[in-house]
Amino acid sequence: MNPHPTPTEVCLVVGAGDATGGAIARRFAREGLHVVASRRRGDLSRFVADIEAAGGSATAVHSDARDEDSVRALVAKAEQIGPITACIFNIGGNVRFPIAETSAQVYRKVWEMCAFAAFLVGREVVEPMRKRGRGTLLFTGASASLRGNTGFAAFAGGKHALRALAQSMARELGPEGVHVAHIIIDGLIDNPSTKALFPDMFEARMPDGILRPDDIAEAYWQLHRQPRSAWTFEMDLRPYKEQW
Amino acid sequence: MNPHPTPTEVCLVVGAGDATGGAIARRFAREGLHVVASRRRGDLSRFVADIEAAGGSATAVHSDARDEDSVRALVAKAEQIGPITACIFNIGGNVRFPIAETSAQVYRKVWEMCAFAAFLVGREVVEPMRKRGRGTLLFTGASASLRGNTGFAAFAGGKHALRALAQSMARELGPEGVHVAHIIIDGLIDNPSTKALFPDMFEARMPDGILRPDDIAEAYWQLHRQPRSAWTFEMDLRPYKEQW
Amino acid sequence: MNPHPTPTEVCLVVGAGDATGGAIARRFAREGLHVVASRRRGDLSRFVADIEAAGGSATAVHSDARDEDSVRALVAKAEQIGPITACIFNIGGNVRFPIAETSAQVYRKVWEMCAFAAFLVGREVVEPMRKRGRGTLLFTGASASLRGNTGFAAFAGGKHALRALAQSMARELGPEGVHVAHIIIDGLIDNPSTKALFPDMFEARMPDGILRPDDIAEAYWQLHRQPRSAWTFEMDLRPYKEQW
Amino acid sequence: MNPHPTPTEVCLVVGAGDATGGAIARRFAREGLHVVASRRRGDLSRFVADIEAAGGSATAVHSDARDEDSVRALVAKAEQIGPITACIFNIGGNVRFPIAETSAQVYRKVWEMCAFAAFLVGREVVEPMRKRGRGTLLFTGASASLRGNTGFAAFAGGKHALRALAQSMARELGPEGVHVAHIIIDGLIDNPSTKALFPDMFEARMPDGILRPDDIAEAYWQLHRQPRSAWTFEMDLRPYKEQW
Repeated sequence: MNPHPTPTEVCLVVGAGDATGGAIARRFAREGLHVVASRRRGDLSRFVADIEAAGGSATAVHSDARDEDSVRALVAKAEQIGPITACIFNIGGNVRFPIAETSAQVYRKVWEMCAFAAFLVGREVVEPMRKRGRGTLLFTGASASLRGNTGFAAFAGGKHALRALAQSMARELGPEGVHVAHIIIDGLIDNPSTKALFPDMFEARMPDGILRPDDIAEAYWQLHRQPRSAWTFEMDLRPYKEQW
Repeated sequence: MNPHPTPTEVCLVVGAGDATGGAIARRFAREGLHVVASRRRGDLSRFVADIEAAGGSATAVHSDARDEDSVRALVAKAEQIGPITACIFNIGGNVRFPIAETSAQVYRKVWEMCAFAAFLVGREVVEPMRKRGRGTLLFTGASASLRGNTGFAAFAGGKHALRALAQSMARELGPEGVHVAHIIIDGLIDNPSTKALFPDMFEARMPDGILRPDDIAEAYWQLHRQPRSAWTFEMDLRPYKEQW
Repeated sequence: MNPHPTPTEVCLVVGAGDATGGAIARRFAREGLHVVASRRRGDLSRFVADIEAAGGSATAVHSDARDEDSVRALVAKAEQIGPITACIFNIGGNVRFPIAETSAQVYRKVWEMCAFAAFLVGREVVEPMRKRGRGTLLFTGASASLRGNTGFAAFAGGKHALRALAQSMARELGPEGVHVAHIIIDGLIDNPSTKALFPDMFEARMPDGILRPDDIAEAYWQLHRQPRSAWTFEMDLRPYKEQW
Repeated sequence: MNPHPTPTEVCLVVGAGDATGGAIARRFAREGLHVVASRRRGDLSRFVADIEAAGGSATAVHSDARDEDSVRALVAKAEQIGPITACIFNIGGNVRFPIAETSAQVYRKVWEMCAFAAFLVGREVVEPMRKRGRGTLLFTGASASLRGNTGFAAFAGGKHALRALAQSMARELGPEGVHVAHIIIDGLIDNPSTKALFPDMFEARMPDGILRPDDIAEAYWQLHRQPRSAWTFEMDLRPYKEQW
């Protein structure tokens, strides 16, 4: 039995585990979209509860975005709930190693998280969108999407590949009514792990010298809202104090 | 006697003559900003009337943005009305000539319109902004901002210089609370001159295969709204059908 | 018994199967470097014979550049012959599919050829170089290294990742005396497969509207020759007639 | 009376005053080209003497590259000596000012030196080249050609405009046999003014952590030598120790 009898529009969030994914999900839920929140493992009940507490609706699905069958099942499940109008791909994989200490396993895994998973999710999710002639697919990039640097061979490789995917898809699918965009997040994000890793920098920049997830989420929502006469492919987001 | 006794926020639009400038002005006026609309020559009464008809307020000022004294007077006049919270630099200068047919006069004039005027306006307008620790300065770019091409030595030169200005100002002024951004408009805009120049292409792409000024204006407004925890320096805008 | 008792410098060419790899190998051999030519499978006897016929010396090694152990063995074998002074990574993988027809297997394989293999070769080969404080590592890129496009999600993804690797390695290893560079080859190359695939275009552009492998090879050699006071990270190569 | 009765090929160096211009001139002279060395003012006798001492030949011409008539006279004079086969545009204008302290005069002058002069020289010099279906035009860029930064509104503006010019000309003139290229010089150059300005950094990086003019010159010469089957539009040059 489908618990959502009316054809609610669905926002699929892949990589829903972190503060950014949560904020984006809440933003889209606030506008009436039903959120399908996916991550590989870990509890999502708090995630769903937060959305419901704010009057929204959400479904949690565990899914391995690096596995083709798992992605197909995820998209099918979301489409059963309602048409996927927006899909947010938000899986990271930021690691830093000198080249000599970058294992083949790490190099491959970072690419699988950043790019291969994005390819699988993107390819599957745009099929129903192009049939309906509408839909938004948003990919989360980073400063490493635009340049490599010492220690970033793996992460920049994954993020560069993601950007190439986004651009290739945007050019192919735009004329079919599917909006593909790439957001370059450049700076520290206000979340528990950043706070733990860089306590001093965190303190020094608060409150708004650090990217706030709710402000990131607003930019994603505005991209989704853009009428097709004026679509953005790429935009960057960084705190006003950021050196870049 | 100042006709605006309450400290209304001002949106200064430089290059207010075209459809895009008009739409941006109306969008900001709708949010309660008083528009100061500037262009070198030509009637602006219709421009002001449109804004007032929609319940907004506006002042027209003739000013030569390529003249330092004129720009200073313009900014001073606008600041008398109220604090300039947003400034939109929207002067174009799109010309196309093979290199052999590009006169020194044209090459210089295009740069003066695209870049020198932007420098004068930008430099003057950010001074009161940085004192107040807030303000938005938006520069209108084009596809030629990112690459040169046959026939575009002059226009791409001006637009590249504008982008360098925008990026230099964004990096310097961001930490002082002034948001400088650059919008790359890539495609035909729905306005009378485009319609006259490319009637067939225009017809084929209507209604939303061509950039609508109101949709461009919305993107400018959203940039102005961004909280300083998550500012965009650069975004592109193009119609969904555009080949790029 | 080492057939090269004097410490001849070695040029390791990975992806030695095509016309470009062959021309580069001959160019470096002409300068006295012993070429170690590697490809996964296929006859390399002609390759070696061509070099020897011109007075050079070469060793053929079959090796799977996507396999860590195989790459380690290859580098060890080459180092036994002599110090690897130059390494050319020349593996391609140009495919073109709409996103819906890009299989997960193809997407992954193209990345493995373009980027993962480059990572393995690069990581292994620079270790002896950085110990000696000198060496050159050249990666072959393509127009897809700089932008994605319809049909190119896989290839552009692999080439973007390769460029990120090259840039990350160049920044890390430059100060240690290892020169890492990325060459963007933009256009048709004069080789049998191009001729077979695009006979008309080929004919129309001959003789020098198509990239000649010997001319590409010269650019690689010049990069290797650069003194470390003035190193190039990136350069493009295209025929004079190319539209870009 | 033409002192050069045989049609010697000419290398025109505009901006011949500094160490880089001198080294490039000597490099081309060494290959038998007659150098026409131009700068606005200042003694060029040493410049000519250095070339002649090494067995080359050169003519010094004072010319204001920002003045159309002066540029026309310069090109005409050089063509009288022999066909201009190579032209090097090497005028700089590196200044650094916060935006508020950048005068309109400085902003304009830097653009005139970096971009307007390049336009005038480029436009004039390629006309005889395209008639002959061959020739090389090399523009000297900088890191500021690719990005703006605090303090660099004027210089980055000029250099961005120069890059747009170079790219526009390369695309237009390549198919006619004229090779236009842009060299991005990223780092300190070994010349007296650098030494005076940054004595400690200079000392720390010697001998080859600083760009040596002769090594820069070699790269320019190699670009000129490229056969038209494989032309470079853009390459960067930096010392191996450079942070970038």
